[in-house]
Amino acid sequence: MAYFGRILLLSILLVVFVNQSRAVCGYESCPETKANMVNIHLVPHSHNDVGWLKTVDQSYYGYKNKIHHAGVQYILDSVVTQLLQDSKRRFIQVETAFFAKWWNVQSETTKRAVTKLVNEGRFEFTGGAWSMNDEAAVNYQAVIDQFTVGLKFLDDTFGACGRPRVGWQIDTFGHSREQAAIFAHMGYDGQFFSRMDHNDKDARMNNLAMEMIWDASESMSGVSLFSGMLYNFYSDTPGFCFDILCTDEPVIDGASEENNVKQRVDDFISYAQNVSDVYITNHIMVPMGGDFQYEDAKVNYKNMDKLIKYINERQASGSNYNIFYSTPSCYLNSLHQSLQSWPNKTQDFFPYAHEKNSFWTGFFTSRPTQKRFERDGNHMLQIAKQLSVFANLTSEQHNQDLDYLRQVMGVMQHHDAITGTERQAVSDDYDRMMYDAIVGASNNARDALRILANMPNGEFESCLRLNISECAFTKDGADNVVVTLYNPLAHTSTQYVRIPVKEERYQVTDEKGRAVPSQVVPVPWQVLALAYRPNDTQHELVFQATANKIASYYIKKVESSEAKHSTIKQISPGEDGNSETVVENSLVKLVIDNQTGRLKSVEMNGVSEQIVQNFGVYKTRTSCAYTFRQDGDIEVLENDFEFTVYEGSLVKEVHQHVNDWISQVIRIYEGANRVELEWLVGPIPIDDQLGSEFVTNFKSGISSNGVFYTDSNGRELMKREKDKREDFVSDLSRQPVSGNFYPVTSRIALQDDAKRLVLLTDRSQGGASLQDGALEMLLHRRHLFNDGGGVGEALNETQYGKGLIARGRLYLTLDSATDGDTATERRTEKELLLPFGKFFSTAGGVQRAAAKSVPDFDDLPQSVHLLTLEHFHENEVLIRFEHFLDKFEGRVTSFNIRDIFDSLGGLAIRETTLDGSLPLSDMKRLKFHAQESGTHPASVEYSTARHKPLEAVKSDEASLFAVTLYPMQIRTFIITKE
Amino acid sequence: MAYFGRILLLSILLVVFVNQSRAVCGYESCPETKANMVNIHLVPHSHNDVGWLKTVDQSYYGYKNKIHHAGVQYILDSVVTQLLQDSKRRFIQVETAFFAKWWNVQSETTKRAVTKLVNEGRFEFTGGAWSMNDEAAVNYQAVIDQFTVGLKFLDDTFGACGRPRVGWQIDTFGHSREQAAIFAHMGYDGQFFSRMDHNDKDARMNNLAMEMIWDASESMSGVSLFSGMLYNFYSDTPGFCFDILCTDEPVIDGASEENNVKQRVDDFISYAQNVSDVYITNHIMVPMGGDFQYEDAKVNYKNMDKLIKYINERQASGSNYNIFYSTPSCYLNSLHQSLQSWPNKTQDFFPYAHEKNSFWTGFFTSRPTQKRFERDGNHMLQIAKQLSVFANLTSEQHNQDLDYLRQVMGVMQHHDAITGTERQAVSDDYDRMMYDAIVGASNNARDALRILANMPNGEFESCLRLNISECAFTKDGADNVVVTLYNPLAHTSTQYVRIPVKEERYQVTDEKGRAVPSQVVPVPWQVLALAYRPNDTQHELVFQATANKIASYYIKKVESSEAKHSTIKQISPGEDGNSETVVENSLVKLVIDNQTGRLKSVEMNGVSEQIVQNFGVYKTRTSCAYTFRQDGDIEVLENDFEFTVYEGSLVKEVHQHVNDWISQVIRIYEGANRVELEWLVGPIPIDDQLGSEFVTNFKSGISSNGVFYTDSNGRELMKREKDKREDFVSDLSRQPVSGNFYPVTSRIALQDDAKRLVLLTDRSQGGASLQDGALEMLLHRRHLFNDGGGVGEALNETQYGKGLIARGRLYLTLDSATDGDTATERRTEKELLLPFGKFFSTAGGVQRAAAKSVPDFDDLPQSVHLLTLEHFHENEVLIRFEHFLDKFEGRVTSFNIRDIFDSLGGLAIRETTLDGSLPLSDMKRLKFHAQESGTHPASVEYSTARHKPLEAVKSDEASLFAVTLYPMQIRTFIITKE
Repeated sequence: MAYFGRILLLSILLVVFVNQSRAVCGYESCPETKANMVNIHLVPHSHNDVGWLKTVDQSYYGYKNKIHHAGVQYILDSVVTQLLQDSKRRFIQVETAFFAKWWNVQSETTKRAVTKLVNEGRFEFTGGAWSMNDEAAVNYQAVIDQFTVGLKFLDDTFGACGRPRVGWQIDTFGHSREQAAIFAHMGYDGQFFSRMDHNDKDARMNNLAMEMIWDASESMSGVSLFSGMLYNFYSDTPGFCFDILCTDEPVIDGASEENNVKQRVDDFISYAQNVSDVYITNHIMVPMGGDFQYEDAKVNYKNMDKLIKYINERQASGSNYNIFYSTPSCYLNSLHQSLQSWPNKTQDFFPYAHEKNSFWTGFFTSRPTQKRFERDGNHMLQIAKQLSVFANLTSEQHNQDLDYLRQVMGVMQHHDAITGTERQAVSDDYDRMMYDAIVGASNNARDALRILANMPNGEFESCLRLNISECAFTKDGADNVVVTLYNPLAHTSTQYVRIPVKEERYQVTDEKGRAVPSQVVPVPWQVLALAYRPNDTQHELVFQATANKIASYYIKKVESSEAKHSTIKQISPGEDGNSETVVENSLVKLVIDNQTGRLKSVEMNGVSEQIVQNFGVYKTRTSCAYTFRQDGDIEVLENDFEFTVYEGSLVKEVHQHVNDWISQVIRIYEGANRVELEWLVGPIPIDDQLGSEFVTNFKSGISSNGVFYTDSNGRELMKREKDKREDFVSDLSRQPVSGNFYPVTSRIALQDDAKRLVLLTDRSQGGASLQDGALEMLLHRRHLFNDGGGVGEALNETQYGKGLIARGRLYLTLDSATDGDTATERRTEKELLLPFGKFFSTAGGVQRAAAKSVPDFDDLPQSVHLLTLEHFHENEVLIRFEHFLDKFEGRVTSFNIRDIFDSLGGLAIRETTLDGSLPLSDMKRLKFHAQESGTHPASVEYSTARHKPLEAVKSDEASLFAVTLYPMQIRTFIITKE
Repeated sequence: MAYFGRILLLSILLVVFVNQSRAVCGYESCPETKANMVNIHLVPHSHNDVGWLKTVDQSYYGYKNKIHHAGVQYILDSVVTQLLQDSKRRFIQVETAFFAKWWNVQSETTKRAVTKLVNEGRFEFTGGAWSMNDEAAVNYQAVIDQFTVGLKFLDDTFGACGRPRVGWQIDTFGHSREQAAIFAHMGYDGQFFSRMDHNDKDARMNNLAMEMIWDASESMSGVSLFSGMLYNFYSDTPGFCFDILCTDEPVIDGASEENNVKQRVDDFISYAQNVSDVYITNHIMVPMGGDFQYEDAKVNYKNMDKLIKYINERQASGSNYNIFYSTPSCYLNSLHQSLQSWPNKTQDFFPYAHEKNSFWTGFFTSRPTQKRFERDGNHMLQIAKQLSVFANLTSEQHNQDLDYLRQVMGVMQHHDAITGTERQAVSDDYDRMMYDAIVGASNNARDALRILANMPNGEFESCLRLNISECAFTKDGADNVVVTLYNPLAHTSTQYVRIPVKEERYQVTDEKGRAVPSQVVPVPWQVLALAYRPNDTQHELVFQATANKIASYYIKKVESSEAKHSTIKQISPGEDGNSETVVENSLVKLVIDNQTGRLKSVEMNGVSEQIVQNFGVYKTRTSCAYTFRQDGDIEVLENDFEFTVYEGSLVKEVHQHVNDWISQVIRIYEGANRVELEWLVGPIPIDDQLGSEFVTNFKSGISSNGVFYTDSNGRELMKREKDKREDFVSDLSRQPVSGNFYPVTSRIALQDDAKRLVLLTDRSQGGASLQDGALEMLLHRRHLFNDGGGVGEALNETQYGKGLIARGRLYLTLDSATDGDTATERRTEKELLLPFGKFFSTAGGVQRAAAKSVPDFDDLPQSVHLLTLEHFHENEVLIRFEHFLDKFEGRVTSFNIRDIFDSLGGLAIRETTLDGSLPLSDMKRLKFHAQESGTHPASVEYSTARHKPLEAVKSDEASLFAVTLYPMQIRTFIITKE
């Protein structure tokens, strides 16, 4: 009896304990509203850019406030203190990058207090990713990753109450459909933002359409997200900024000559009425905050307290305005409870224009080298994560290094980072962090490869300057170098590898000692001429490599070469008797016009088309980091280009010398069904004191009829139509060019009944089709004028005192529009985004060693991408499978992951939301009623309603490990390991 | 036993309670220091101007932050929150005007928390008066009053721990000896300030004389005050302003690229070493704060915490710098404990120059009408306080009204209020408050007079526009008006009274119906011509009145006048055959030069002297509200003045028409031994786009030899010598005129062996003697240029769109230097400062009634002034007696106050410090050792050491009520009433 008694007591204590600590967060914690009144949800928030005018740390510590008054450490100190003083007060925290930095140095007392606030819904995470990411220039993989990092931190720290329910993309410069889909797949109930084309907003204000149900996927039905547009940007009600950074009138309620209670209440109610007029329900959300506000939160709360008090006091005399502290999620909850239905939205919100002369299309390309560096970061991150899983690297240092790159990549997705809209010093700091983080993660890769590649003494150096055909490891000669390749893709891939070398003869062999064909190609002299390039290597060794996961190739200098030099055919315009030069291999035929030196036509995939490439500049005085503002028509290059052709059995290259600051290599690889155009641009001249928007364009005879396609964050293609918008009429009178540019994260395409022309990019860029059959890409930008967007600096990037030189690649494919297979474009995209990682070691006297076997993903269906493979918690692996074809390209596919599960040492597996932190079975989303069903009904595709989470353990039947993926579906699993 | 047990328990509990609540404030609470180290007393403080760029309320509420970021409510909110978080943190609160405003709206919880902080010395009052008063333009009476208001509030709120020990005059523009004396008499142990002539400061830095013992009274020995000059103004250590208003580097100690701990510590220690080099002890005080800082105190404290931590950490590696939060009183305590001796100081710190072209002498006169209005406020305050005591007015409304004027007068003493260095909008707000407060207090006076004058229906209107010879009450004819006079002086006084009237004939009678001689004088046409003056009354009725305390005079229009009109003698220059016009009465003879129209000579007191008055202007482009910067020599008026003489039996007036913006009345009253010069100046022309310093000067043949005298806040005279300073050589090369001006609060004088010439003023003004025998007064100023002092506005006062017109009076006396009696000057000063109050009622059919008897002070010795008589706490009356002659003018005097005590219904009496809040027997001051005794040893005068506090009760022997006053001594008593 005594024994049972003890258990009973324990149980009671436990119940009491659980009850006491039971969190009432989320919708349960929302303030009461009044049915017959206009309910004003006052939402205190601070918008903290993870770098903009100041670096992340400067913004966190409140350093260099002369540049910008911003000190996030103080904001959090202050807000927490203020929330503790009154349980009605609320605050939303958005950027987890800053929150984590702050949390990690707090005392246990403060942590407990904050936890209490979180558990009571008073301090609520909204958004919650590492940063508030951009939606134009980001690749979906990095977005998912940075939500994973942010939400995992919140989940690890606070559990369920730390999980955001609402997206908060209030400052992002336009909105992508893919972002909405990502939110939906993470279980978010809605999102809010505040930037859309002014004509769109005007129309929506008139049509009660500021809030809508966004059908976020064309391929998957039921993937919808409630999306709300804020009334007045994301800042305070005009005249009611109570922040120390503002100078609006405080509420003065004392016996003072300045007592202004009546006027303040009148004004606020009048504003609330205006807001209420353009929204459907009797609820309105009024955000109170702005950039780096709430550093001294008592000022904000003290005045809001008074405002609330005096507005509600009016109810006694008949006012029907009811105001209270709230959060976006509580506002959304009220909307949900209103049982209203909402208009639909199907396309996206690009481009953004805040007025008719300001289309924010410049940032699609701003800082092109930084945009490329971010891709390098993503590349290293995916490789290091996968390798760390395979080699089971779990030391503190390894985890730290990997986390650092995860976090830095999170920072880079910020809407003033990858966008290129930050100040130069901040950009430099991003580069510093990226570099450090990539180096750190490459150590993980090295340590993993030492194990996995069976080369315990391998150096596995990453050559981070391969973009200028330079590698410290090979500079003194590539004699006895082993290049270990890591393939982050699921399937075995064959790719051409280029290694900077001296002008020598080399032999390449594989792990088994078999000779591999190779070719030596000269590095273009424009690259050699780069002032900051130590010209150790003037050539590149090219060979074709194949890797499932890990493969090593051995390079050795030899006397008589098997690596043939390319033959050289130098054409000076008009010199050659022929009017054109043909460069072709088994798959592709290029024709170069000998007079102009330009690409003239392409033949591939059984299709031939006149495709003329040129370069041009829009001269401007008024563009800035954000906006591209044409002052006049494009000025295309009129001069003829000199060119030289290098031909070999593996690769054929046309080296074009356009002028003294533009050059290009057009190349085709044997067996590769695409044309690679590697451009080198800069320094863009500024002698004329004008800014430049530098573009290349391709003109074809394809009758595209104004229609073209650009990808949404690297996934679904969005149909674009010149001068048209989905929902509204945009005023393009001032900016007919700029207003037709769209973000191209990976792909831009056009077609007619017969032919399809596609450009793939190696980084995000702005792209357009300004004439039928033509594609234009904004490659580089240089401006001399300060902008009106607040950054306070001209986008005039320099390097060693001269204008920045950028180098990048476009990939052109021409295909049949009817017989063509756009799935190939998808595969190419993946290969470009996640090519082999290259790691260099000294071959020395070491025995050639076969790599150890690592889990094999080769059996996955060809349409399935291994999106993510990484350590999650201790003894947990997160894995994401993606069906990377859309509903036009692919079909539902199923596969069994039992082998993968086993090879990863799985004990149990659970499916989660896209971010990994929430078991999918726990995901409950609010259902909103759309006024009409989506405008693109589909028959067979996925519907969220039918989705049943996978959950299994090692001993379960293999059938439980069956995974079905609908086109464009991504599924996320956490495997618990032994 | 049980009973005793209970008592014992109770006792124990009581002891515990008392122990727990025992306050450890003051010196006991000071932080420990280290003997062998440089001890850095870090003193957090905020300097909160009680109006400057913004009004008091705007500054309190944080309103109009666009003008100036200032919100005192938030400062106090924030500081209290921060102090509660760490018991080592400290803060000093200075301006009680702001503190009281804040305290009164705090919750009981906050009040308890603050009380705890005060009781532990963590939140310490320093200064503590209602405002940080100016020391140049203030009259000592108002200074004492405003300390009384401030310290009483602190004492009532916090008791002993609320009492400041140290004066904190850090922003005041120069320092008066009288202020030091006032501090000494209030029991302060020392004071700190930060403005003194730059040459003086340089010399003191070189001579280790930044801290000194100030002998604060020439007449009373032993009245000394430790006075310390701050090293670097009152602001933060350069580069170490951690306030949100600053942009200095925070201390960044995280794992960050920006970590700057080493550099910050190096820099601070280097600074501390520089400071330490110029002070005597191994202690230095480093104030951390500035104007309106600490609004977000966590930023300040968080960074100071880190600074302290890392500086002290260095001690482990040999650093001998020890830093801690402290207060000025704790610093002073450390100095006291050092047992050092300190250099002496005897004169004062006027004028202040922060560099050789910037003598802050303009503010002695800036806003002359506001300076006069402040005197009106003081006048009404003294009258209302006295009357409230006599009539025992104690209703809440009466107390409130009186307190409001007390407080507003406290505000007006602020160093940007009475100085005229505030913005125009702030000046307007001071005027508004002053007007409201005077009207409120005048209601007290009215209610008291209804009782005391025995006229329950009397209106007792105060005519506040008598300064422009206008009175609403008499504008429709002064038929059947009764003028009740209140005499705030101790002794019966006879004065001339002037009442604005229409041009009629009047009869004046006294309370007993006896006819009183009267005269009607025309108002100068320049006054009648004032655009904003409703010209209801063009004359003034003049009669001589006598009052002990209250006296009423009855005015009635009659057909045939007994009030004679003055005879008129209009002289146009050169018209009269005579070369001069003599205007004389039984005591004074004036000679006017008929050609020039100027005063030419004066004869009185048996002395005759050529005294030529003229007006002039220093034209300037660079003067501002603070500084008077001459750009060239004076431009004196060359034109001849027209004048008219009005003569009657009571008064003779010379109305001078100088030009279209300057006029003057020179008048002599029968029986009054002085010449009154009533000037009217303005609008000062600005057609030449230059600023003007408008002066009048009087040139005599007196061989003054460069020496002249000006009063210190209306009390002791300070000897001035042209181009000389007491302690140092001032660089007068750039400003030989401005640098010779001194503040004249009441009197300026010069003399030779035979004759003495004195000017008395009706408000504070700048004055100088630039040539032997000459006196020059700066009457009015108008400037068109923004200044460098921060006020951001030109001192260009306007009224109804035109330049401000000012009207004021100078009183000139000529006397024998040997037989003369400067005591008369003193009495005249008192009469000018506190003349009869005039209250107007309708005589109607009411019976003439004799005033009720009120306590009589007529028996006080003639050298004794009734400085203050007012309600203190409930059933308490505060009374101050002042010996208003200095040691050269008067002698020790004794009198018995038993009659006064009884007539006030006294039960007990205690003597207190000058402010009234501390029983004198409780006053304990730190003793500092001077390096030499005072430079003006005196034989018989007062010494603080010998002073024995008076304390008595009703039943005590009358001898206990004997009061002895030494020259210049003021004694303060609290009488407890029945």
